[in-house]
Amino acid sequence: MTRMRQSQLFTKTRKEAPSDEVAKNAQLLIRAGFVHKEMAGVYDLLPLGLRTFEKVVSVIREEMNKIGGVEMHLSALQDPAVWQKTDRWSDEKVDSWFKTSLKNGGELGLGFTHEEPLTNLMREQISSYKDLPTYPYQFQTKFRNEARAKSGLMRTREFVMKDLYSFSKNSTEHMAFYEKAAEAYKKIFERVGLGDKTYMTFASGGSFSKYSHEFQTECEAGEDVIYIDDASKQAINKEVYDDAEVYKTTGINKATLREAKAIEVGNIFTLSTRFSEALGLKYKNQEGTEVPVFMGSYGIGPARLMATVAELLSDAKGLVWPKTIAPFAVHLVELSAGNEDVKKEADEVYAQLTAAGVEVLFDDRDARAGEKFADSDLIGIPLRVVVSQKTIASGAFECVERATGHTTHKTLSELITDLSHV
Amino acid sequence: MTRMRQSQLFTKTRKEAPSDEVAKNAQLLIRAGFVHKEMAGVYDLLPLGLRTFEKVVSVIREEMNKIGGVEMHLSALQDPAVWQKTDRWSDEKVDSWFKTSLKNGGELGLGFTHEEPLTNLMREQISSYKDLPTYPYQFQTKFRNEARAKSGLMRTREFVMKDLYSFSKNSTEHMAFYEKAAEAYKKIFERVGLGDKTYMTFASGGSFSKYSHEFQTECEAGEDVIYIDDASKQAINKEVYDDAEVYKTTGINKATLREAKAIEVGNIFTLSTRFSEALGLKYKNQEGTEVPVFMGSYGIGPARLMATVAELLSDAKGLVWPKTIAPFAVHLVELSAGNEDVKKEADEVYAQLTAAGVEVLFDDRDARAGEKFADSDLIGIPLRVVVSQKTIASGAFECVERATGHTTHKTLSELITDLSHV
Repeated sequence: MTRMRQSQLFTKTRKEAPSDEVAKNAQLLIRAGFVHKEMAGVYDLLPLGLRTFEKVVSVIREEMNKIGGVEMHLSALQDPAVWQKTDRWSDEKVDSWFKTSLKNGGELGLGFTHEEPLTNLMREQISSYKDLPTYPYQFQTKFRNEARAKSGLMRTREFVMKDLYSFSKNSTEHMAFYEKAAEAYKKIFERVGLGDKTYMTFASGGSFSKYSHEFQTECEAGEDVIYIDDASKQAINKEVYDDAEVYKTTGINKATLREAKAIEVGNIFTLSTRFSEALGLKYKNQEGTEVPVFMGSYGIGPARLMATVAELLSDAKGLVWPKTIAPFAVHLVELSAGNEDVKKEADEVYAQLTAAGVEVLFDDRDARAGEKFADSDLIGIPLRVVVSQKTIASGAFECVERATGHTTHKTLSELITDLSHV
Repeated sequence: MTRMRQSQLFTKTRKEAPSDEVAKNAQLLIRAGFVHKEMAGVYDLLPLGLRTFEKVVSVIREEMNKIGGVEMHLSALQDPAVWQKTDRWSDEKVDSWFKTSLKNGGELGLGFTHEEPLTNLMREQISSYKDLPTYPYQFQTKFRNEARAKSGLMRTREFVMKDLYSFSKNSTEHMAFYEKAAEAYKKIFERVGLGDKTYMTFASGGSFSKYSHEFQTECEAGEDVIYIDDASKQAINKEVYDDAEVYKTTGINKATLREAKAIEVGNIFTLSTRFSEALGLKYKNQEGTEVPVFMGSYGIGPARLMATVAELLSDAKGLVWPKTIAPFAVHLVELSAGNEDVKKEADEVYAQLTAAGVEVLFDDRDARAGEKFADSDLIGIPLRVVVSQKTIASGAFECVERATGHTTHKTLSELITDLSHV
């Protein structure tokens, strides 16, 4: 749907967020009617929130498709047998499992990531060097049994993740894709409005490899500490800050770094043969020898991106969405105060804008101007177009840019020309 | 993505389904590379399967939007407190819960349906008669701890459901929407190719109301038994077959009914005030009195629809997709046998079809004609277009309709004209 009447939108804005909600991103998203808090670390997406979420998803999907990603969808329920092979089933090894039981016996897990089932599945698909490389990805819910969940939508117990996995013949082929993926990630953060503050960050490789890369967005509310090299727009995660080898590898000068708090908005990992060896995912190379597939993984959480944008790009009045991920392009506000001419004119503007393909939220509610403007500021749609007796008399509608407050007056045809080129 | 080279598609067709898979729908979908069986009752969607699934979702979404549905997304993790209020938390009352525990204490459930959290959420949104009616819906995963799961994708432990909930002022307003929803459901089943065999079926109302309506698709593999009245295209579920009141209410003559097995592809329920009373969802009517909201619920599982189509519309060679939900509109098959001219021509056809907006799966693999045709039949894309030395010589490409085998020869421009009007 490219349009919506606010009288049909069942959500209401709120003056106050729930008292137990300490994170600014969640406070704003709740007050503006984008999300609802189900419990600590668990949020529902309300209609406006779902629209922005889906726009973030579309941006990520486009960039993944461009680098050869093929979309699929794995299950949430997990068979222990597969995870035992990689030694990631026991709660001592992985402390974030949610586990459950089948009625007729047997434990199941709720996927906190999907390396195991996908590697296992690919054993049926990959047998020869001709089958490689390949890049399946999905948008699927991850469940993580977080001990604390206080950062709003930044760290939740249930969240959709885009996870892409690369299957390559060897580390050379892998690294070529790894670099393409890093570029695709940079494009994603630019497109959603976080490019300026996001740094490709050298980090620990966890149990998989010596190092990995995170994408960290500088933000006071972040849970991570990074050291930024402004000259090269790179950063180093605190966890490897004291590792001399990092500076040798990256060429970064430790003396020039500045410390900052940051949100991890994405990460890319070289998995090497950690999973393919454990699960027996091999291929026959051109010499006819069976060798393990060389893997990588690449994650982004769309709701965390949405929350990061809410945290960073908002102002005292509320949310400020970039055009690329705003729930609608235009917030059409009629100030009829019961005047039928104004109502008719607003209906006409709504009809014509949407006919031209512009996405419009139409505030057709019977409410005071002050309330409508405050709601409009809180919701944060990029352009507000006002229809009132005054604007009808002048033949041009008041257009206010949410981000800057910049006001212009435009006729309907000028508006349509401007907006259909966005 | 509107196109895909088969050489990039990582899935392979299979001669045999897993030996533990007894359901025809799952056997075919697995063999054709649409789904992968993770365990009994749990399936992954592979790229072709995800495409068809998403097309079914789009059909449903369009019809829900047309009747005023507003999309949102509730969490899978469920807070027991809300379900205790309606007495649906205990395993004695609901035997299909999957439950899990928070690391820092407390049980959680995995939603098998969403009446409770949505009714609870709507308490913040609905306060006056002016807020009603309203129709939120979602596509969200349900988890159900099924004791047996033998019907392939017909009955699974984890599946996406479209569930819409209606919130109305009273039963009159409710029934008006209920009838609109029933019409929307009929359109959905027609659009996905099941209209002819799907019957609106009188059924038990469970614990909510005396009766409900199911949409049952006649099929030998179905788990339900219904009694069909061919004259009126209605049916009666076995569970209420011996209830004399049913015949009084529906005007159906019991003597004319024929018994059939069927698959429940959708259901619509009058919930009345069962949930709104238990959870305190009230509104102030025009007289200023607080009264409970009158509710209904409306469910369809897109993967079950996909499986029903696979079960019913397939033939000995494989799947046969209706155009509306086929993963691609055209299966372009090149029989170059290494001939560069044929390859070039096929590339050109691929480029021009996709430039015209036609969704194409391009079998550019280095394989024998027999293998390519067998795979094409198994995958079941509505139209196969063949490029070979013969077709180049004649100036027209062989076009074979999957459903009928009907063969024609068309030039590229004829093809584009035909297909861009689909």
